[in-house]
This record gives sequence, structure tokens and C-alpha cells, in this order.
Amino acid sequence: MDKKQSLYTLGELAELLDVTLVGRADIGISGLATLKTAGPGQLSFLSNPRYTSQLSNCRASALIIHPDQADRSPCACLISDSPYVTYARVSQLFAPADSDTEAPTIHPTASISSTAKLAADVVVGAHAVIEDRVTIGAGTRIGAGTSIGKDVTIGSNSVLYANVTVYHQVVIGDNCILHSGVVIGADGFGFAFDGEQSIKIAQLGGVRIGHDVEIGASSTIDRGALDDTIIEQGVKIDNQVQIGHNCVIGKHTIICGCTAVAGSTTLGSYCLIGGASAFAGHLTIADKVVVSAMSMVTKSLDTGAYSSGTGIMESSLWRKNVVRFSQLNEISKRLRELESMTRVKK
Amino acid sequence: MDKKQSLYTLGELAELLDVTLVGRADIGISGLATLKTAGPGQLSFLSNPRYTSQLSNCRASALIIHPDQADRSPCACLISDSPYVTYARVSQLFAPADSDTEAPTIHPTASISSTAKLAADVVVGAHAVIEDRVTIGAGTRIGAGTSIGKDVTIGSNSVLYANVTVYHQVVIGDNCILHSGVVIGADGFGFAFDGEQSIKIAQLGGVRIGHDVEIGASSTIDRGALDDTIIEQGVKIDNQVQIGHNCVIGKHTIICGCTAVAGSTTLGSYCLIGGASAFAGHLTIADKVVVSAMSMVTKSLDTGAYSSGTGIMESSLWRKNVVRFSQLNEISKRLRELESMTRVKK
Amino acid sequence: MDKKQSLYTLGELAELLDVTLVGRADIGISGLATLKTAGPGQLSFLSNPRYTSQLSNCRASALIIHPDQADRSPCACLISDSPYVTYARVSQLFAPADSDTEAPTIHPTASISSTAKLAADVVVGAHAVIEDRVTIGAGTRIGAGTSIGKDVTIGSNSVLYANVTVYHQVVIGDNCILHSGVVIGADGFGFAFDGEQSIKIAQLGGVRIGHDVEIGASSTIDRGALDDTIIEQGVKIDNQVQIGHNCVIGKHTIICGCTAVAGSTTLGSYCLIGGASAFAGHLTIADKVVVSAMSMVTKSLDTGAYSSGTGIMESSLWRKNVVRFSQLNEISKRLRELESMTRVKK
Repeated sequence: MDKKQSLYTLGELAELLDVTLVGRADIGISGLATLKTAGPGQLSFLSNPRYTSQLSNCRASALIIHPDQADRSPCACLISDSPYVTYARVSQLFAPADSDTEAPTIHPTASISSTAKLAADVVVGAHAVIEDRVTIGAGTRIGAGTSIGKDVTIGSNSVLYANVTVYHQVVIGDNCILHSGVVIGADGFGFAFDGEQSIKIAQLGGVRIGHDVEIGASSTIDRGALDDTIIEQGVKIDNQVQIGHNCVIGKHTIICGCTAVAGSTTLGSYCLIGGASAFAGHLTIADKVVVSAMSMVTKSLDTGAYSSGTGIMESSLWRKNVVRFSQLNEISKRLRELESMTRVKK
Repeated sequence: MDKKQSLYTLGELAELLDVTLVGRADIGISGLATLKTAGPGQLSFLSNPRYTSQLSNCRASALIIHPDQADRSPCACLISDSPYVTYARVSQLFAPADSDTEAPTIHPTASISSTAKLAADVVVGAHAVIEDRVTIGAGTRIGAGTSIGKDVTIGSNSVLYANVTVYHQVVIGDNCILHSGVVIGADGFGFAFDGEQSIKIAQLGGVRIGHDVEIGASSTIDRGALDDTIIEQGVKIDNQVQIGHNCVIGKHTIICGCTAVAGSTTLGSYCLIGGASAFAGHLTIADKVVVSAMSMVTKSLDTGAYSSGTGIMESSLWRKNVVRFSQLNEISKRLRELESMTRVKK
Repeated sequence: MDKKQSLYTLGELAELLDVTLVGRADIGISGLATLKTAGPGQLSFLSNPRYTSQLSNCRASALIIHPDQADRSPCACLISDSPYVTYARVSQLFAPADSDTEAPTIHPTASISSTAKLAADVVVGAHAVIEDRVTIGAGTRIGAGTSIGKDVTIGSNSVLYANVTVYHQVVIGDNCILHSGVVIGADGFGFAFDGEQSIKIAQLGGVRIGHDVEIGASSTIDRGALDDTIIEQGVKIDNQVQIGHNCVIGKHTIICGCTAVAGSTTLGSYCLIGGASAFAGHLTIADKVVVSAMSMVTKSLDTGAYSSGTGIMESSLWRKNVVRFSQLNEISKRLRELESMTRVKK
């Protein structure tokens, strides 16, 4: 077992997290749990006021809690103005270590080009493939079966889990996390139709991914046609997201799962994109745009909150309403006609 | 060629499937085919009454058929109250064997930790990776290039096809099928925003998958934040489905392709979820809910059938109706005003 | 560096592309770039009239341009009636070579069955797996970690990038490109419900992919239940597309990213399917159908252009309109009632 999985005292945690301790500093904390499931030795947190009523039955040994609610805690407290942020920070202390065995740093079955340059403490898993002229920074870990194409540069302290694929000439920053199944740098979808068939447009650009980017399982980010596709610093992308060629995703934007962004669309910084949304190509989305889940974005957007879709309803009602939707322009015209008749008669 | 690919007589099939034979027991059956394409030596089936008219031209040597329609069969019959279920059962008899060569049970290129415990007849493909303290039950097959993380437990008679990825601390039951590209146990999508950047919430839970679960190609099931993500017994998940952290999918629920379920949503048992649907997070969906394809589910649902969307129409009409949709609240108000004017005048 | 990355003169390019040169034949061209970013030594193109205004500031050494606009070019020209097609063709000349080292044609770590038949110049990457009775034609390249199942046939000059998975009994044509994460031939999603559980229907068909097909990263194409799933010649499929069992995709049809096609649906030839669309099963879509992005196709379609969805709007307005959508049938009835009252009073 790794140090990270061992006990902390509440006093140690207060110090590491730079928060105020209310209660005994020597309480041992072996793990984290929700308000509902926490038991002795566990630390929980109250962030969403909706769960305040669960405080009375909470069996945790300690709570991360906002100063306004601290007097309602049934146990020791770590007082934080941002309990959710403090919970995020403490969660990292309890994450299982990635390497708890005496395994070799570079697995003997990995296939690594003699022209690749790996910093001394890079970890490479079994059957990984690292091609010519790849550069990998200190502390970065390459998972089992992961394939890194030619001329790729990866920064320090990044993690590429098992079975990731990175095509040639991609740049990935420091402290990035790429989950399994991710594909970076496959060809953008570009063809010229000559009247009979689609002529492939070779995708000559690359992909540049900034620092602190996380990309979820099986997401795909295509290489640019001529210029690069760009994912800026701090962007967080969930699973099964597709980013087309020559997109630019601004810093610290969050994209939830199964969203599709068509080619050459630019998203601003600090956007929040709901899951299963789709963006048409060649759009410009401003900073701090919020798009709700499953929205179809067909035009450029200024800062604001946007949605689309019909809402969910019983199928029997929906079938009738859908017919009316197809008549909507007609309905609108009939209404206007009625209005004009009614006004005439006034 | 394996025994499974050899001939059965119709009499043998009637006995194996426990159905009544009408016709000669010694008819040889070499394979299955649709009513339309079946020829001599092949067995077909009639399940959907829509295809009854195809009976007259059917050239199959035998049919699986409901007793009510058996007298319309032009050939020998296997009589079943549930022809589709009987077809499903017989289809398994004609599936190609997974191993028809003298290949070694554990491929010599597989990388298997010395602390992993594999039952004697486990099959492991080329370049597969099995990490520390993994336990795999009897008859389970691990495909080529598949990666199994630390402390994973997999039951008996399960199949993980090539290039599957299972992260650490995942539990998978007996008789499960995971198709290629599946990723189980990647981090759930959780961050706390500190005003400047997103702080990662370590995902400390796992994933527990019950018996008899099938998961389609490139589907992803995230590990829980604190508690586990749970897929109950008999659940069938199609390709490219995303299940967020801390979801619970109730037993025998069916989820069609490209559906996204956001975190902490619970689906009941025996639900039927149409393809390309999306569920918001933190919802509770009752048992036996039916959701039609491409629905956006934004609220908890009681047992019933639900839909969303506008239906498909010619683009020229759609462009007009979409404008009216954006005016719908206004249209409704104008209608109410007209009604009040009209009633006043009565 | 490979020959492909070396310089061409403009005269050589005019000859290779069979277009008219206006300007000096000895201008050296080292690469391609957009009108906006091109500099000395680079070739650009003007295809979309929207960008004509960028001509004046263009610093490229040469342009591909339509004869009607050639007199506005600030530099040497390659005159083409279809500048975009000519750009596509020239882009292929500047694509980086796939093999620029002295690496062995068959990587020593690849696992290749003794019964597989590979043409003499097939390239196989590290840790690739090629199973029994596979046949691969001349010039085809199999990427690192890619797995090819039993009895698969792949034509000539095709490229399967790293970490592709092809199940057993799949046929792939010549000049195909399969990007990383693609899964061909996983089981179609078929079950018969016996009242208590879902009985798996073994998927006994295969997949047949014609010549000149490109399939984007992480797309999945399921094998047929009894007959084959068919992708005809020249089809181009973007990333994260799902094609269900027994679909037929007609020749030269283009399917944009994240689209889902449910089982047994037939798409005609030369269709253009917008991204993130979904097709119900058992539909027949005519030739040359155009479907806009994120459409839900629930019925068979004749040749024409089709759309669905509500458009995007500010969330505050959307929330009101969505309520009205759920009342749409009621609104329509009220309108009709008003009309009948108003007409009575005429």
C-alpha cells in the first residue's frame, strides 16, 4: 500500500488544505464518503444546501463545511468558504497511487524508437509503442498498449492511460490526463467532391493541447487541415466528445460527454457545454457561454445561456404535438388572420 | 471446423430447443437465414406477422413458427409459442466457435502479473495486459490487446474482446460480454471550480457490473466519485453508450446505441431506452420506462412511455416552423388574448 | 525526410495536377497554407467566394484559383475550374510519408498467424495481431496494436491506423482508411425477450466494406444478424459514427460525425448526412438525400433535404417555448375553435 492510502489525522488535513479545524486534531481519517454513507474514520462534506437535512444522521468522523453551517455539524469540522473545492483537493490525497509495485519504469515489452527522448522517470506500460523522435517530459506515464506517433511532444507529469492513440506531430502539455480510447490527431473529415467521388483532402495540420487538459474516454480530436486544432490550457473534456479539425477550444472551457463540435468552430474561454450537444462548423462562440444539454447550436453565440429541444413528455401526447410542430408556420398564419379579422370587427 | 459449425438434424434441434417437430427428423440443417434468403439445408423463422406473405416463396428446409401459423408453412416446422426466442436460442448453436485452432490458452506475448489469479482454462490473447491482483474466473476469455487494471475481478465464462480497457478496482460478473473499444472505470467527470480553474475531484469509487451484462463496442462506463457506478444483472448496452459516474442501471434494462446517461442518474429495471437519447444527471427513472430514440430526458420519470423531439420534415418547411417555435410563447399569449376578446363579445 | 516532403516547383505541380500555370514555372513550393496564413514558398487556394477579400493581403507564392478570379490574384496561379478539388489533389502530394525510417516492414513484435497470407510489401506495426486465415493485399498497412480477427480479407493499399479492431469474417476493400479506435464487426444489438430476460441472438452475418471507404476514429460498424452489413464503395464516415447490423450504406454517401444508424436501415447513394443525426431502424432512405445536423429520422425518406430540431435560443425564452410545445396540440384545438366561432359570427 502506498503512502497516499494511509491515514491522515484531521490536523494534518487541515494543514495540507489550509483550512480551519474545529475539533480534535488527532482524529484519524482513512477515507472519504458521502454524507449518507460515511462512517467512523471517514471524512465527508456538505456543499449543496439541499443535503443539509442529512447532517443529523451523518456518522462521519469529520465534515468539510461552510462557516455558516458549521454549528449544525454533528462532528469535527474542516471549515472552508468553498467546501466543494476543499473536497476536490482532499480527494486527490486519497487517490490510489498509480504505481504500488516494484515494476520497472519502462516495461520490457514496450516498443520504443531509438530516436525517442524520454525523461529519466517516464513510466511506459506493457506493449506501448513510442515512435521516432517522440519527446516525453519528466513524470509522464504512458499506459499499456498506448501508441504515440512520430514527432509527438508530451510535457511533464501527464498521464495517458491504456490504449490511447496519438497520431504524428501532436503537442500535449504538462499535467494533462488522456483517458483510455482517446484518439488525438486522426484526420479531419475533409473531401472535395469532383462530381463522381470524394477526393480526400490530406490533413496537414496537427493538434496542440495546452497544460492541465483532461480528455475523457473515447473522445476524439482531429488534426487540422492546414493549421492546427487547438485545445487551450485547463480545458476539461468528458467522454465520447468529438472535436473536428481546426476547432479552437478556449481555456478552462468544460465540455460534457457525447458532445460534437464540427470543424473550424471556435469556443471561447470558460464556456460550459452540456452533454450530447452538437455545434455546426465555422461558428464563433463567445467566452462564458452556457449551453444546456442536447442543444443543437447552429449559429454563433454571444455570452449568455442557450438551449434547444422540446423537453420530454408522454409519447401519446408527444405524437400529437409533433404533428402540430410540423404545422406551426400554418398555425401562426391562421392566428394572424384571426387577429386581423377580430381587430377589423372591433 | 468446430463442432458448433457442423450440421444438426432437425430432430436434434427440436430436442435441444425443446420444441415440437412437424416433418422429418433427419433433415440436415447447416445454417440459419432469413425467410427471403434461406435455401435448402437452412432453417428460417417467422416472428413478425408482417413477413407472413414471404412464406409462400420461402425455400428454407425448415421454419421456426408459431402454432397458429404452422399450417401455412411450406416446409418442415419447429413449433414454438415464441418463435423469436427460439430463433435466439438456435442462433447460439450456429455461432462460430471462438477457438478453432491449437493455439495456446495463454498467448506467450500476453503480459500477466505474477500476482494475478487466473482459473486454469482462462484464455488470454496476444499482447493482452493483466495487472497485479487481478482475478479471472473459469472459462473467461481476454482478447488481444485488452488491458485489465489492478485489483479487477472478472467472473466466469465472460468474454472481453480485443482492445477493451478495464481500469483498476472494477468488478465484472459471470457470462458478461464486453466488445472491443469498451472502457470501464475511467474517471467520472468531476471538477470543483475555484473561480479561476477546475480542480479535479479524484474519482475514488469503482464500477460493479452484474452477471449476464453485454456492453457494445466503444461504450464507456465511468467509475464513481465516492460510491460505485452499478450495472445490474442482465443489462444490455449497445455501442457508443456513455454511463456517467454513480449511475445505477437496473436489472435487464436495455440501452440502445449512442445514448448518454449523465452522472448519478438511476434507471429502473426492465427499461427500454431508445438510441441516441440523453439523460440529465441526478434523475430517477422508474422501472419499465420506455424512452423513444433521441429523447432528451431532463426530469425523473414514472413508469410509462416518453418521447421528445420535433420529428423530421423537409428542410424548407422546417426552417419556417423553427422560427415559429422560437415565437411559441408569444403565439400562445396572442391566442389567449384573442380568446378573451372573442368571449367578451359573445 | 521523404521525397513527399521535399519541394516541388510550380511547374511540376501544374503538370502533376493537369492545370494551367500562370507565372514562373521555377517557383519553389514547400507547403500549403490558408489565404490568411500563407507566406513565401507556400501555395494557397481560393474556393469559397466569401474569402475573395483576403486576396489582397495574401503573401503566398502561388494560388489555386478559378479562371474567373485569376486576374485578381496577387501572385502566380494554378488555374482550375474546381479549385477545391485541385487543392484536395495537391494536398495529397504534401502529406507526410507514412514510413520514413529503415524500420522493418513487419515489426518483430507483431503477432501473425502462420496461416495468414500477407502480400510481400504489407506493413505491420508493433504489437499488431493478425489471426488465422487473414488475407491482406499489397501495400496495405496495419498500425501498431491493431487486431485483425480470423478469416478477414483486406484489399490492397488500405491503411488501418493504430488500435483498430476488426472482428472475424469481415471483408475490407482496396484503398480504404480506417482510423484509430474503429471497431468493425462487433455483434449487432439483438435480443429476444422471454418475459424475464434478454436472450442473445448470435450475430452470424459479417461486414463487407467496398473500395475507397474512409472510416473515422472510434466509429463502429456492427456485423449482421444473418446477412451482412454493407458499406459500399466510396462511402466516407466521420468519427464516432455507429452503423447498426444489416444496414446498407450506398456508394459515395457521406456521414458526418457522431451519427447513429439503427439496424436494417438502408441509405441510398450520394446522400449527405449531417453530424449527430440519428436514424431509426428498418428505414429506406433514397439516393441523394440531404439530412441536416442533429436530425432525428424516424421515417423513410425520398430524395430531398430534411431537418428536425427546434433551433437554439436563449435559455430563458426556451424554457417558456418548451412549455408551449407540450401544449401544442391543445393550442391548435383552441385556434380551430376560435376560427369556427369567428366564422360563425361573420
